[in-house]
Amino acid sequence: MSIVAVGSIAFDTVTSRYGTKDRMLGGTATYFGLAASYFTEVRVVGVVGDDFTAEHVNVLRSHGVDVSGVQRTSGKTFFWSGEYGANVNEAKTRATELNVFADFNPDLPRNYRDSEFLFLGNIDPTLQANVRRQMNGARLVGGDTMNYWINNTHAALLDTLKLMDVLIINDAEAKSLAGETNLPRAAQKVLAMGPKALVMKHGEYGATIFFREGAFGIGHHPFRAPALPIEEVQDPTGAGDSFAGGFMGYIASQGELNRETLKRAMFYGSVMGSFAVERFGTERLQNLTREEIDARFQIFRELTHLE
Amino acid sequence: MSIVAVGSIAFDTVTSRYGTKDRMLGGTATYFGLAASYFTEVRVVGVVGDDFTAEHVNVLRSHGVDVSGVQRTSGKTFFWSGEYGANVNEAKTRATELNVFADFNPDLPRNYRDSEFLFLGNIDPTLQANVRRQMNGARLVGGDTMNYWINNTHAALLDTLKLMDVLIINDAEAKSLAGETNLPRAAQKVLAMGPKALVMKHGEYGATIFFREGAFGIGHHPFRAPALPIEEVQDPTGAGDSFAGGFMGYIASQGELNRETLKRAMFYGSVMGSFAVERFGTERLQNLTREEIDARFQIFRELTHLE
Repeated sequence: MSIVAVGSIAFDTVTSRYGTKDRMLGGTATYFGLAASYFTEVRVVGVVGDDFTAEHVNVLRSHGVDVSGVQRTSGKTFFWSGEYGANVNEAKTRATELNVFADFNPDLPRNYRDSEFLFLGNIDPTLQANVRRQMNGARLVGGDTMNYWINNTHAALLDTLKLMDVLIINDAEAKSLAGETNLPRAAQKVLAMGPKALVMKHGEYGATIFFREGAFGIGHHPFRAPALPIEEVQDPTGAGDSFAGGFMGYIASQGELNRETLKRAMFYGSVMGSFAVERFGTERLQNLTREEIDARFQIFRELTHLE
Repeated sequence: MSIVAVGSIAFDTVTSRYGTKDRMLGGTATYFGLAASYFTEVRVVGVVGDDFTAEHVNVLRSHGVDVSGVQRTSGKTFFWSGEYGANVNEAKTRATELNVFADFNPDLPRNYRDSEFLFLGNIDPTLQANVRRQMNGARLVGGDTMNYWINNTHAALLDTLKLMDVLIINDAEAKSLAGETNLPRAAQKVLAMGPKALVMKHGEYGATIFFREGAFGIGHHPFRAPALPIEEVQDPTGAGDSFAGGFMGYIASQGELNRETLKRAMFYGSVMGSFAVERFGTERLQNLTREEIDARFQIFRELTHLE
């Protein structure tokens, strides 16, 4: 089953202890689309400028990603530049040039609207809601947000959260959204805002999914997927979007939306995040096989499984 | 099989969002001893002052802990006071009064020396080494340290690390000891210093054990135990020592020292840490049953186990 992903498409310049790489293809829709493409059919919605070449388009297209929803506008593509120091969980932003992304107003092509799954990348919650309403038949909607929207468009975000089934954010965002520093209490407060499940990403410590009582099955226990200890983290950019792509892509590939599916999806999300950070940009995500993915899934299982 | 634990015995005054509790019984030997007592016979070594009453002694003794190695000296017992704010992983110390603990020079009673397991709590590495040499027949020696010793007695610590089988420290300590911010690389550097295994504690994110190649079995994959998301963390003090007590206590209760034993021990360590923080001081650790412990062990399994 296909999934529609809405989000940024960008050029990223990244510096880490492994060096600097200029103007790599990046952005939410790119990382998410590549990661999800190993599991299911993906249709992306985004906006690019004149500097976006056929070569860039082909990175997604060669993975079977439908790019007919990518708008081309005169101007430059969104550009981000950042540096990772000792703490790989946090980037120091050097430059953010929104460019054509500043006026992004996503509109789904007709042929996208029969998709059963939707991922709303981190954009203005009002735009997220508009997209959501263009896909009223969606079986499951995942979404992301960030502190900027939590602080500056709080009311609109609360409206949009009611339209999401699974919110996928990091610890700091969950704490900020809930106004609560204890993680499971923050999770309960966020779930009360609308989503049936909350995925909290803990960076190099993995991620936890919290379920609303009765959602996707019975019971109230959360589920935690580890992250793989990786010796060479060349570039953490896109790890979260790759997690979301693996998570949502696996879900979209399954028939049943139950807790076991979502738990396995947590592992596949972690697997895709672990690949993403091993090389700069999307290099690793461009060159994977499903066999490599499933082999790493087994490593993740062994990382926490007792006999 | 019995385990000897050497470490501080203290009175702690703790403030958290749940209030303030004055002069509670605490310290490494106390938390470790209580946690380990649910698995095996425990013999503690420590020092207390005139203010330590029979009631305090009975907290340990009533759990079957042998306290004949606790020295009583004229003066006051070690006192610590601290406060936990929004970040429960970090305490703000208000007061540290070493008192009789400043001259602690542990000497094992004769009847302790046939123990097969030893835990060296966080004290001067030279004293740790002295104790270690009094138990040459030990099958497995676990130990802790902290940044103070890493920075100020580095050479002595390196000598002592060669006498330990399992080092149990937190992320920040491992990074500092290794001079390396990447966790798995830091682990490899620490393992090269002597220990056969390194347990890195991640606070509310769980803990990871890294094995030296060939130690306790084959393979080079680490193993990660989650932490339970706990809604009411009343007092994080002693969580690490309780983890160590559950971890070492479970190991001492088992016949075989293989990787499966150590992996299960990681879960039991996490279980005991999760209980410890639910109430101020040692209250929760004083009132447990093995049934409650094993029930929580199952919850921990379900937290990360796929069907």
